[in-house]
Amino acid sequence: MRRLVVFNNITLDGFFTDANGQIAWAHKGNDKEYNDFVAENAKGGDTLILGRKTYQELASFWPTEQAKKTMPEAAEGMNRMRKLVFSKSLNDATWSNTTLLKGDIAEEVRRVKQEAGGDIAILGSGSIVSALAQQGLIDEYQVVVNPVVIGKGRTMFDRIRSNMDLQLTKSRVFGNGKVYLCYEPTKGA
Amino acid sequence: MRRLVVFNNITLDGFFTDANGQIAWAHKGNDKEYNDFVAENAKGGDTLILGRKTYQELASFWPTEQAKKTMPEAAEGMNRMRKLVFSKSLNDATWSNTTLLKGDIAEEVRRVKQEAGGDIAILGSGSIVSALAQQGLIDEYQVVVNPVVIGKGRTMFDRIRSNMDLQLTKSRVFGNGKVYLCYEPTKGA
Repeated sequence: MRRLVVFNNITLDGFFTDANGQIAWAHKGNDKEYNDFVAENAKGGDTLILGRKTYQELASFWPTEQAKKTMPEAAEGMNRMRKLVFSKSLNDATWSNTTLLKGDIAEEVRRVKQEAGGDIAILGSGSIVSALAQQGLIDEYQVVVNPVVIGKGRTMFDRIRSNMDLQLTKSRVFGNGKVYLCYEPTKGA
Repeated sequence: MRRLVVFNNITLDGFFTDANGQIAWAHKGNDKEYNDFVAENAKGGDTLILGRKTYQELASFWPTEQAKKTMPEAAEGMNRMRKLVFSKSLNDATWSNTTLLKGDIAEEVRRVKQEAGGDIAILGSGSIVSALAQQGLIDEYQVVVNPVVIGKGRTMFDRIRSNMDLQLTKSRVFGNGKVYLCYEPTKGA
Protein backbone atom coordinates (compact mmCIF):
# COMPACT_ATOMS: atom_id res chain seq x y z
CA MET A 1 0.00 0.00 0.00
CA ARG A 2 1.18 3.55 -0.71
CA ARG A 3 2.50 5.53 2.24
CA LEU A 4 0.82 8.79 3.23
CA VAL A 5 3.37 11.31 4.49
CA VAL A 6 2.88 14.77 5.98
CA PHE A 7 5.62 17.31 5.27
CA ASN A 8 5.38 20.69 6.96
CA ASN A 9 7.51 23.48 8.31
CA ILE A 10 6.47 24.58 11.80
CA THR A 11 7.58 27.32 14.18
CA LEU A 12 9.07 26.55 17.61
CA ASP A 13 5.62 27.41 19.03
CA GLY A 14 4.07 24.72 16.84
CA PHE A 15 2.35 26.61 14.01
CA PHE A 16 2.43 25.66 10.31
CA THR A 17 0.86 29.01 9.32
CA ASP A 18 0.59 32.33 11.09
CA ALA A 19 -2.80 33.81 12.03
CA ASN A 20 -3.16 35.14 8.46
CA GLY A 21 -2.29 31.85 6.74
CA GLN A 22 1.19 33.09 5.81
CA ILE A 23 4.46 31.12 6.01
CA ALA A 24 7.06 33.75 5.10
CA TRP A 25 9.06 32.69 8.19
CA ALA A 26 9.61 29.24 6.63
CA HIS A 27 11.47 30.74 3.66
CA LYS A 28 14.08 32.55 5.74
CA GLY A 29 17.59 31.18 6.13
CA ASN A 30 17.30 28.64 3.34
CA ASP A 31 20.65 27.23 2.31
CA LYS A 32 21.94 24.76 -0.25
CA GLU A 33 22.28 21.84 2.19
CA TYR A 34 18.68 22.28 3.28
CA ASN A 35 17.32 22.84 -0.23
CA ASP A 36 19.13 19.74 -1.51
CA PHE A 37 17.66 17.73 1.33
CA VAL A 38 14.12 18.89 0.57
CA ALA A 39 14.53 18.13 -3.14
CA GLU A 40 15.93 14.65 -2.43
CA ASN A 41 13.31 14.00 0.25
CA ALA A 42 10.46 14.80 -2.17
CA LYS A 43 11.68 12.31 -4.79
CA GLY A 44 9.73 9.31 -3.49
CA GLY A 45 6.40 11.09 -3.89
CA ASP A 46 4.25 11.46 -6.98
CA THR A 47 0.93 12.62 -5.53
CA LEU A 48 -0.01 15.56 -3.31
CA ILE A 49 -3.09 15.86 -1.13
CA LEU A 50 -4.10 19.46 -0.44
CA GLY A 51 -6.86 21.38 1.30
CA ARG A 52 -8.40 24.39 -0.40
CA LYS A 53 -6.28 27.05 1.29
CA THR A 54 -2.98 25.31 0.61
CA TYR A 55 -4.08 24.48 -2.94
CA GLN A 56 -4.87 28.11 -3.70
CA GLU A 57 -1.58 29.23 -2.17
CA LEU A 58 0.51 26.75 -4.19
CA ALA A 59 -1.52 27.11 -7.42
CA SER A 60 -0.97 30.87 -7.38
CA PHE A 61 2.81 30.43 -7.38
CA TRP A 62 4.16 27.26 -8.99
CA PRO A 63 2.64 27.64 -12.50
CA THR A 64 3.97 31.21 -12.85
CA GLU A 65 6.91 32.26 -15.03
CA GLN A 66 8.58 33.60 -11.88
CA ALA A 67 8.50 30.15 -10.23
CA LYS A 68 9.75 28.42 -13.41
CA LYS A 69 12.60 30.91 -13.67
CA THR A 70 13.74 31.08 -10.03
CA MET A 71 13.14 27.45 -9.01
CA PRO A 72 12.96 25.49 -12.28
CA GLU A 73 13.35 21.95 -10.88
CA ALA A 74 10.93 22.43 -8.01
CA ALA A 75 8.40 24.13 -10.31
CA GLU A 76 8.64 21.29 -12.84
CA GLY A 77 8.02 18.76 -10.07
CA MET A 78 5.15 20.65 -8.47
CA ASN A 79 3.41 21.24 -11.79
CA ARG A 80 3.89 17.62 -12.94
CA MET A 81 2.80 15.84 -9.76
CA ARG A 82 -0.75 14.64 -9.36
CA LYS A 83 -2.71 16.92 -7.02
CA LEU A 84 -5.82 15.79 -5.14
CA VAL A 85 -7.67 18.75 -3.66
CA PHE A 86 -10.39 18.42 -1.03
CA SER A 87 -12.85 21.31 -1.03
CA LYS A 88 -16.57 21.75 -0.60
CA SER A 89 -16.49 25.32 -1.92
CA LEU A 90 -14.22 25.21 -5.01
CA ASN A 91 -15.99 24.58 -8.32
CA ASP A 92 -12.93 23.91 -10.41
CA ALA A 93 -9.19 23.50 -10.00
CA THR A 94 -7.22 24.62 -13.05
CA TRP A 95 -3.65 23.83 -11.96
CA SER A 96 -2.13 21.08 -14.13
CA ASN A 97 -2.80 17.46 -13.07
CA THR A 98 -5.25 18.48 -10.36
CA THR A 99 -8.38 16.56 -9.36
CA LEU A 100 -11.03 18.15 -7.18
CA LEU A 101 -12.56 15.74 -4.66
CA LYS A 102 -15.88 16.31 -2.91
CA GLY A 103 -16.35 13.01 -1.08
CA ASP A 104 -15.46 11.91 2.44
CA ILE A 105 -11.77 12.64 2.98
CA ALA A 106 -10.94 9.41 4.79
CA GLU A 107 -12.77 7.23 2.24
CA GLU A 108 -11.10 8.93 -0.73
CA VAL A 109 -7.67 8.61 0.90
CA ARG A 110 -8.20 4.93 1.69
CA ARG A 111 -9.01 4.40 -2.00
CA VAL A 112 -5.99 6.35 -3.28
CA LYS A 113 -3.65 4.49 -0.90
CA GLN A 114 -4.75 1.21 -2.54
CA GLU A 115 -3.85 2.45 -6.04
CA ALA A 116 -0.45 1.81 -7.60
CA GLY A 117 2.10 4.60 -7.20
CA GLY A 118 4.71 6.21 -4.97
CA ASP A 119 4.33 8.04 -1.70
CA ILE A 120 1.46 10.46 -1.22
CA ALA A 121 2.38 13.71 0.51
CA ILE A 122 0.25 16.23 2.37
CA LEU A 123 1.65 19.78 2.42
CA GLY A 124 0.10 22.45 4.66
CA SER A 125 -3.59 21.55 4.93
CA GLY A 126 -4.02 21.44 8.70
CA SER A 127 -7.68 20.45 8.62
CA ILE A 128 -6.86 17.44 6.42
CA VAL A 129 -3.93 16.38 8.61
CA SER A 130 -6.16 16.48 11.70
CA ALA A 131 -8.93 14.51 10.00
CA LEU A 132 -6.64 11.79 8.64
CA ALA A 133 -4.45 11.55 11.75
CA GLN A 134 -7.42 10.66 13.95
CA GLN A 135 -8.37 7.93 11.46
CA GLY A 136 -4.88 6.43 11.61
CA LEU A 137 -4.34 7.01 7.88
CA ILE A 138 -1.06 8.95 8.10
CA ASP A 139 2.05 6.78 8.00
CA GLU A 140 4.68 9.43 8.67
CA TYR A 141 4.95 12.97 9.99
CA GLN A 142 7.91 14.93 8.63
CA VAL A 143 8.23 18.20 10.47
CA VAL A 144 10.86 20.92 10.04
CA VAL A 145 11.13 22.99 13.23
CA ASN A 146 12.12 26.54 12.27
CA PRO A 147 14.16 28.77 14.62
CA VAL A 148 11.39 31.31 15.09
CA VAL A 149 8.51 32.06 17.44
CA ILE A 150 5.41 33.81 16.06
CA GLY A 151 2.96 33.89 18.99
CA LYS A 152 -0.26 33.13 17.13
CA GLY A 153 -1.17 30.76 14.30
CA ARG A 154 -2.63 27.38 13.39
CA THR A 155 -1.26 23.97 14.30
CA MET A 156 -1.71 20.97 12.00
CA PHE A 157 -3.40 19.14 14.84
CA ASP A 158 -6.02 21.57 16.14
CA ARG A 159 -8.88 19.14 15.58
CA ILE A 160 -7.21 16.17 17.27
CA ARG A 161 -9.46 15.05 20.10
CA SER A 162 -7.20 12.64 21.98
CA ASN A 163 -3.45 12.49 22.59
CA MET A 164 -1.49 10.81 19.82
CA ASP A 165 1.81 9.14 20.73
CA LEU A 166 4.51 9.14 18.06
CA GLN A 167 7.82 7.41 17.55
CA LEU A 168 10.82 9.43 16.41
CA THR A 169 12.42 7.59 13.47
CA LYS A 170 14.80 10.12 11.90
CA SER A 171 16.22 13.55 12.61
CA ARG A 172 18.64 15.99 11.04
CA VAL A 173 19.95 19.39 12.08
CA PHE A 174 20.78 21.96 9.38
CA GLY A 175 23.26 24.82 9.42
CA ASN A 176 20.44 27.33 9.03
CA GLY A 177 18.98 26.21 12.36
CA LYS A 178 16.14 24.18 10.89
CA VAL A 179 15.62 20.77 12.54
CA TYR A 180 13.99 17.95 10.58
CA LEU A 181 12.09 15.48 12.76
CA CYS A 182 10.44 12.40 11.33
CA TYR A 183 7.84 10.42 13.28
CA GLU A 184 5.58 7.41 12.82
CA PRO A 185 2.43 6.74 14.82
CA THR A 186 3.28 4.45 17.74
CA LYS A 187 2.42 0.88 16.85
CA GLY A 188 -0.75 -0.33 18.50
CA ALA A 189 -1.74 3.18 19.58
CA MET B 1 25.59 39.14 34.49
CA ARG B 2 23.63 36.00 35.34
CA ARG B 3 22.02 34.17 32.44
CA LEU B 4 18.26 33.66 32.34
CA VAL B 5 17.36 30.31 30.80
CA VAL B 6 13.96 28.82 29.96
CA PHE B 7 13.68 25.04 30.26
CA ASN B 8 10.43 23.41 29.16
CA ASN B 9 9.07 20.24 27.66
CA ILE B 10 6.73 20.85 24.72
CA THR B 11 4.56 18.64 22.53
CA LEU B 12 5.12 18.39 18.77
CA ASP B 13 2.16 20.77 18.42
CA GLY B 14 3.99 23.33 20.55
CA PHE B 15 2.26 23.19 23.94
CA PHE B 16 4.01 23.22 27.34
CA THR B 17 0.76 22.31 29.13
CA ASP B 18 -2.47 20.78 27.94
CA ALA B 19 -5.77 22.69 28.12
CA ASN B 20 -6.11 21.71 31.80
CA GLY B 21 -2.58 22.76 32.77
CA GLN B 22 -1.38 19.15 32.94
CA ILE B 23 1.94 17.77 31.66
CA ALA B 24 1.55 14.02 32.20
CA TRP B 25 2.70 13.49 28.58
CA ALA B 26 6.13 14.91 29.48
CA HIS B 27 6.74 12.17 32.04
CA LYS B 28 6.24 9.30 29.61
CA GLY B 29 9.17 7.41 28.15
CA ASN B 30 11.75 8.79 30.55
CA ASP B 31 14.98 6.85 30.51
CA LYS B 32 18.31 6.97 32.29
CA GLU B 33 20.17 8.77 29.50
CA TYR B 34 17.54 11.49 29.43
CA ASN B 35 17.25 11.78 33.23
CA ASP B 36 21.03 12.02 33.57
CA PHE B 37 21.08 14.76 30.96
CA VAL B 38 18.39 16.78 32.76
CA ALA B 39 20.16 16.43 36.11
CA GLU B 40 23.52 17.49 34.62
CA ASN B 41 21.88 20.29 32.64
CA ALA B 42 20.28 21.75 35.78
CA LYS B 43 23.60 21.94 37.67
CA GLY B 44 24.55 25.46 36.56
CA GLY B 45 21.41 26.98 38.02
CA ASP B 46 20.70 28.03 41.57
CA THR B 47 17.55 30.14 41.20
CA LEU B 48 14.13 29.40 39.70
CA ILE B 49 11.61 31.94 38.44
CA LEU B 50 8.05 30.68 38.52
CA GLY B 51 4.55 31.94 37.81
CA ARG B 52 1.74 31.13 40.23
CA LYS B 53 0.39 28.08 38.42
CA THR B 54 3.77 26.42 37.99
CA TYR B 55 4.74 27.33 41.57
CA GLN B 56 1.63 25.68 42.98
CA GLU B 57 2.18 22.60 40.81
CA LEU B 58 5.82 22.18 41.90
CA ALA B 59 5.23 23.14 45.55
CA SER B 60 2.57 20.47 45.87
CA PHE B 61 5.02 17.74 44.83
CA TRP B 62 8.68 18.37 45.63
CA PRO B 63 8.44 18.89 49.42
CA THR B 64 6.45 15.66 49.89
CA GLU B 65 7.82 12.44 51.35
CA GLN B 66 6.88 10.72 48.08
CA ALA B 67 9.15 13.05 46.06
CA LYS B 68 12.01 12.69 48.56
CA LYS B 69 11.70 8.92 48.41
CA THR B 70 11.28 8.38 44.67
CA MET B 71 13.56 11.15 43.35
CA PRO B 72 15.83 12.06 46.29
CA GLU B 73 18.49 14.03 44.37
CA ALA B 74 16.04 16.05 42.32
CA ALA B 75 13.86 16.74 45.38
CA GLU B 76 16.87 17.92 47.37
CA GLY B 77 17.84 20.28 44.55
CA MET B 78 14.33 21.62 43.99
CA ASN B 79 13.74 22.21 47.71
CA ARG B 80 17.15 23.85 48.22
CA MET B 81 17.14 26.19 45.19
CA ARG B 82 16.01 29.78 45.56
CA LYS B 83 12.51 30.24 44.13
CA LEU B 84 11.19 33.62 42.98
CA VAL B 85 7.43 33.51 42.43
CA PHE B 86 5.51 36.19 40.57
CA SER B 87 1.86 36.39 41.59
CA LYS B 88 -0.66 39.14 42.22
CA SER B 89 -3.10 36.75 43.90
CA LEU B 90 -0.96 34.63 46.26
CA ASN B 91 -0.60 35.98 49.81
CA ASP B 92 2.19 33.70 50.94
CA ALA B 93 4.48 31.03 49.54
CA THR B 94 5.49 28.44 52.09
CA TRP B 95 7.82 26.21 50.02
CA SER B 96 11.39 26.40 51.36
CA ASN B 97 13.59 29.22 50.02
CA THR B 98 10.73 30.90 48.19
CA THR B 99 10.24 34.64 47.80
CA LEU B 100 6.95 36.07 46.59
CA LEU B 101 7.36 39.04 44.27
CA LYS B 102 4.61 41.55 43.52
CA GLY B 103 6.49 44.15 41.47
CA ASP B 104 6.94 44.56 37.72
CA ILE B 105 8.28 41.28 36.35
CA ALA B 106 10.84 42.78 33.96
CA GLU B 107 12.19 45.20 36.58
CA GLU B 108 12.55 42.48 39.21
CA VAL B 109 14.28 40.17 36.74
CA ARG B 110 16.71 42.89 35.64
CA ARG B 111 17.61 43.39 39.31
CA VAL B 112 18.07 39.67 40.00
CA LYS B 113 20.26 39.23 36.89
CA GLN B 114 22.65 41.86 38.30
CA GLU B 115 23.07 39.96 41.58
CA ALA B 116 25.87 37.44 42.14
CA GLY B 117 24.97 33.80 41.44
CA GLY B 118 24.57 31.08 38.85
CA ASP B 119 22.08 30.72 36.05
CA ILE B 120 18.45 31.58 36.65
CA ALA B 121 15.94 29.12 35.18
CA ILE B 122 12.29 29.53 34.28
CA LEU B 123 10.25 26.33 34.34
CA GLY B 124 6.71 26.23 32.93
CA SER B 125 5.28 29.72 33.51
CA GLY B 126 4.17 30.63 30.00
CA SER B 127 2.94 34.10 30.89
CA ILE B 128 6.33 34.96 32.40
CA VAL B 129 8.23 33.57 29.41
CA SER B 130 6.12 35.68 27.03
CA ALA B 131 6.58 38.84 29.11
CA LEU B 132 10.35 38.48 29.48
CA ALA B 133 10.96 37.29 25.91
CA GLN B 134 9.45 40.47 24.45
CA GLN B 135 11.71 42.53 26.71
CA GLY B 136 14.81 40.68 25.49
CA LEU B 137 15.60 39.42 28.99
CA ILE B 138 15.84 35.70 28.18
CA ASP B 139 19.31 34.52 27.20
CA GLU B 140 18.51 30.94 26.22
CA TYR B 141 15.51 28.77 25.36
CA GLN B 142 15.96 25.08 26.14
CA VAL B 143 13.09 23.11 24.72
CA VAL B 144 12.51 19.35 24.80
CA VAL B 145 10.20 18.32 21.95
CA ASN B 146 8.19 15.29 23.08
CA PRO B 147 6.97 12.63 20.60
CA VAL B 148 3.30 13.38 21.20
CA VAL B 149 0.50 15.51 19.79
CA ILE B 150 -2.26 16.73 22.15
CA GLY B 151 -4.44 19.00 20.00
CA LYS B 152 -5.14 21.78 22.49
CA GLY B 153 -3.04 23.52 25.11
CA ARG B 154 -0.96 26.59 25.93
CA THR B 155 2.27 27.65 24.25
CA MET B 156 4.98 29.51 26.18
CA PHE B 157 4.76 32.32 23.67
CA ASP B 158 1.04 33.09 23.42
CA ARG B 159 1.51 36.74 24.36
CA ILE B 160 4.35 37.41 21.92
CA ARG B 161 3.25 40.24 19.66
CA SER B 162 5.93 40.14 16.94
CA ASN B 163 7.98 37.35 15.37
CA MET B 164 11.10 36.46 17.31
CA ASP B 165 14.02 34.96 15.38
CA LEU B 166 16.21 32.48 17.24
CA GLN B 167 19.55 30.84 16.65
CA LEU B 168 19.92 27.10 17.23
CA THR B 169 23.02 26.56 19.39
CA LYS B 170 22.76 22.95 20.58
CA SER B 171 20.64 19.88 20.00
CA ARG B 172 20.47 16.30 21.20
CA VAL B 173 18.26 13.37 20.31
CA PHE B 174 17.39 10.82 23.01
CA GLY B 175 16.51 7.14 22.72
CA ASN B 176 13.04 7.81 24.16
CA GLY B 177 12.25 10.08 21.19
CA LYS B 178 12.65 13.35 23.06
CA VAL B 179 14.64 16.00 21.17
CA TYR B 180 16.46 18.72 23.10
CA LEU B 181 16.78 21.99 21.18
CA CYS B 182 18.68 24.97 22.58
CA TYR B 183 18.29 28.47 21.11
CA GLU B 184 19.54 31.98 21.76
CA PRO B 185 17.79 35.12 20.56
CA THR B 186 19.31 36.20 17.23
CA LYS B 187 21.90 38.93 17.85
CA GLY B 188 20.66 42.38 16.94
CA ALA B 189 17.06 41.17 16.61
